[in-house]
Amino acid sequence: MKTMTLVAEKPASAERRTRGNRRSPTAKPVGVPYIVRNIPTYDILSEENLVKIEQTADRILAEVGIEFRDDPVAIQHWKRAGAKVDGLKVTFEPGMLREIVSSAPRQFTQYARNPANNVEIGGKSVVFAPSYGSPFVMDLDKGRRYGTLEDFQNLIKLAQSSPWLHHSGGTICEPVDVPVNKRHLDMVYSHIKYSDRPFMGSVTAEDRAEESIEMARILFGADFVDRNCVILGNVNVNSPLVWDGTMTNALRAYARANQAAVIVPFILGGAMGPVTNAGAIAQAFAETLAGCALTQLERKGAPVIFGNFLSSMSLRSGSPTFGTPEPAIGSMVIGQLARRLGLPLRCAGNFSNSKLPDGQAMQEGLMSMLSAIHCGANFILHSAGFLDGLLSMSYEKFVMDTDLCGALHSYLAGVVVDDNTLAMDAFLEVGPGSHFLGSAHTMRNYTTAFWDSALSDNEPYEKWSEEGGSTDIATRANRLWKKTLAEYEAPALDEGVDEALCDYVARKKGERADAWY
Amino acid sequence: MKTMTLVAEKPASAERRTRGNRRSPTAKPVGVPYIVRNIPTYDILSEENLVKIEQTADRILAEVGIEFRDDPVAIQHWKRAGAKVDGLKVTFEPGMLREIVSSAPRQFTQYARNPANNVEIGGKSVVFAPSYGSPFVMDLDKGRRYGTLEDFQNLIKLAQSSPWLHHSGGTICEPVDVPVNKRHLDMVYSHIKYSDRPFMGSVTAEDRAEESIEMARILFGADFVDRNCVILGNVNVNSPLVWDGTMTNALRAYARANQAAVIVPFILGGAMGPVTNAGAIAQAFAETLAGCALTQLERKGAPVIFGNFLSSMSLRSGSPTFGTPEPAIGSMVIGQLARRLGLPLRCAGNFSNSKLPDGQAMQEGLMSMLSAIHCGANFILHSAGFLDGLLSMSYEKFVMDTDLCGALHSYLAGVVVDDNTLAMDAFLEVGPGSHFLGSAHTMRNYTTAFWDSALSDNEPYEKWSEEGGSTDIATRANRLWKKTLAEYEAPALDEGVDEALCDYVARKKGERADAWY
Repeated sequence: MKTMTLVAEKPASAERRTRGNRRSPTAKPVGVPYIVRNIPTYDILSEENLVKIEQTADRILAEVGIEFRDDPVAIQHWKRAGAKVDGLKVTFEPGMLREIVSSAPRQFTQYARNPANNVEIGGKSVVFAPSYGSPFVMDLDKGRRYGTLEDFQNLIKLAQSSPWLHHSGGTICEPVDVPVNKRHLDMVYSHIKYSDRPFMGSVTAEDRAEESIEMARILFGADFVDRNCVILGNVNVNSPLVWDGTMTNALRAYARANQAAVIVPFILGGAMGPVTNAGAIAQAFAETLAGCALTQLERKGAPVIFGNFLSSMSLRSGSPTFGTPEPAIGSMVIGQLARRLGLPLRCAGNFSNSKLPDGQAMQEGLMSMLSAIHCGANFILHSAGFLDGLLSMSYEKFVMDTDLCGALHSYLAGVVVDDNTLAMDAFLEVGPGSHFLGSAHTMRNYTTAFWDSALSDNEPYEKWSEEGGSTDIATRANRLWKKTLAEYEAPALDEGVDEALCDYVARKKGERADAWY
Repeated sequence: MKTMTLVAEKPASAERRTRGNRRSPTAKPVGVPYIVRNIPTYDILSEENLVKIEQTADRILAEVGIEFRDDPVAIQHWKRAGAKVDGLKVTFEPGMLREIVSSAPRQFTQYARNPANNVEIGGKSVVFAPSYGSPFVMDLDKGRRYGTLEDFQNLIKLAQSSPWLHHSGGTICEPVDVPVNKRHLDMVYSHIKYSDRPFMGSVTAEDRAEESIEMARILFGADFVDRNCVILGNVNVNSPLVWDGTMTNALRAYARANQAAVIVPFILGGAMGPVTNAGAIAQAFAETLAGCALTQLERKGAPVIFGNFLSSMSLRSGSPTFGTPEPAIGSMVIGQLARRLGLPLRCAGNFSNSKLPDGQAMQEGLMSMLSAIHCGANFILHSAGFLDGLLSMSYEKFVMDTDLCGALHSYLAGVVVDDNTLAMDAFLEVGPGSHFLGSAHTMRNYTTAFWDSALSDNEPYEKWSEEGGSTDIATRANRLWKKTLAEYEAPALDEGVDEALCDYVARKKGERADAWY
């Protein structure tokens, strides 16, 4: 089958393939644990221009420096490594950080509790994970409101039900009804309980990071966790050129446990970075490189992911804009730089400023998402659900995006050239002026030939309007997420593990008073 | 200004730039007569695989052949050129057609009646033209109905009003209220009257093609037309492997007049071609190559454009599907093949099967449109307006797509790397933990930094819902096209030319009875 070319060394289990088939009304490609890309990356800049950007990053690191706030251990790491420390400000000789990150793996496996769902991060692999971090959720019935733990679990269930996502993500929405200092316990437990894919832990405080990892130890065993990556933590630079202690403490907690930190600047061009793309890219490279290096100083050889988040700004209102052309094209350059550095890449996912799952949402979302595909991103956080800038997860957009992720499986399969696909036998059989519908070649290949969306309308106009109820895709998405939640079945979880996790969560919750900020 | 890097040898006139500025609420990029791409093409296949596809095309041409129906002159051309003719079927020795097309120009100018709007077709140039050929039009107020001459003229006015299109197109919709055998006269006149950009003529009969060209001679002068391209004709293969006489007669009429035919196969994989991409691409290459060669046999050195139209099929319903991943990725290969052949390329534009300007419409449209951008297409027909497969032009989608074309101007500008864009002065000025909003670098660059859509909503949620009326992009597009039509002013046209054209149209209409099919 065509789609089996997407399967990596560890093919999907029979169970998984069956599930994929059951969810698809026709024989469209089945789910795979992750994608192995069969198209090259889209490299838009010359070697000469890449070097200019790297040299600018080197100058930023050497002449401007980065502040590391509220983390004396990080400062000590830098001193020992030979960086120049002046109060909180650290400057770096050109080449020093590159040398330090060279100990990080180019590729690693993140393990899932279902081994069929293990993902490779790095090289030619592409992993889709849901969006992350919205305080609000929205749907067409109830509009926008703060997210709750129920929403959090619903969105995990929708993710788990899609054959086109590979990862359960992390803060799929903020469960605002749970105290801030206990939220991570419910979030990690929900990922483990309602999904059997890899997941992410908390980074909002060092103890929350450590407790997230501890729950992973309960699930996988402490020794296994010390040797293998089972949880990711996504940490943000406080751009421009500041690393806050909250983030570096979490970053170091993940590295210390041999788990992968995802190191992500957050640059809105014109605000947290220069208004020109080349400069914003140089800054992003400098900030990310410093974070990646810090993981190696905490624990040499720990896995780490080079992250990217470029965005732009409306010149009319000063609002951040998402899914616009400049970040899309800039991300291609970030991809080139990450490959030159030899680190796995996380890149821009599916963003839009639209408040509805409308044309703007899908246009902006796809421009951003295809950029991540083309730039060679290995881990695409924010693959599904975002609307409203980064502020809301939309139930409809979530299933529209997972359907798009399915289409991107076919896209990344590229154009296969072999005797079968070249179809010379079909031309000899059919000849001029006939059709290929019943040819032996078509019969042999049609079940795997084309992506078949579960949401797009491809009917003639009359059928769409008379039988189909003249629906738009958002309306069809509204029906699909409800149907999917109604049909959801949780993957089996060992009862002893479940109990141990529940005990741990209850104990940790009992140790502290509720905090709401 | 950043956008001036987009301007070719012939920069936009002051008038044009003023118009571009007037239409944009802020200082976003101004209109240019066409784009000169500053990003490379996205080449996805290896040399080895390209050769395999070319060899398969050679085998199709040599072993299966192409039928040329109802055009004895075409058959005579092939005989004289040394092809093997067996009744209607013509077969070609490998290399023969490549040798014949080598006389066609790699790049040419299509002239407009306003010289500031002349476009280059070929090389690094990208020209956006509206969609072509729908019998229906639709808008949110009146739904779907057959197109009329009023719709035809309205859509030309919308195209002319957009700084982000470069070409007036051709059959922007079918004016179904005009007799079939007189339609071309009203269509060509409307393009000349309501637009001052380049345009296309009729191909539905040889005399209609010749009369379209004759009207161009009235506008530009017969001698000028004999030496320069001023009108395009878009001719389709009757795939698989049949050229109908209607099309080859029109093709030869354009070539004979030294005008450019656009040669386009129409392959729905599984129906008019193999269900596998590589085979469909080989077929498209063979069919297009034969058409391009025929132009050179009619008049050596005539301009010609290598066209591409790949599509897919729903495996559930058998309906054609548009904006899907397989044609998008296949078009990248067509681009590579066209460049190896050395001909200008027309590629897939903005297609969707959606019946509404919704999320499906923009997702499918952008996937297809970005494919045309990446594959190196020089002339992108169907850049704006299509919904409903190829059957309807949507007023709302039209302005949504022209806005997207604006974004693609910024996308194609790529990442400029120089001392200014690298922004080292900004980093030295701002330093860690501050912001770039008021920096000298931002002040110097912000007016041209980012694409600023006229249709996307980038406001905070509260402002969108309270002041903005909670609109979706389709609703805003509905307002925009009405406002644009209300403000439209026709470009000045020489009165003598106008009169001569009207006389010609009246005379030709008087020569024949109405025909409605």
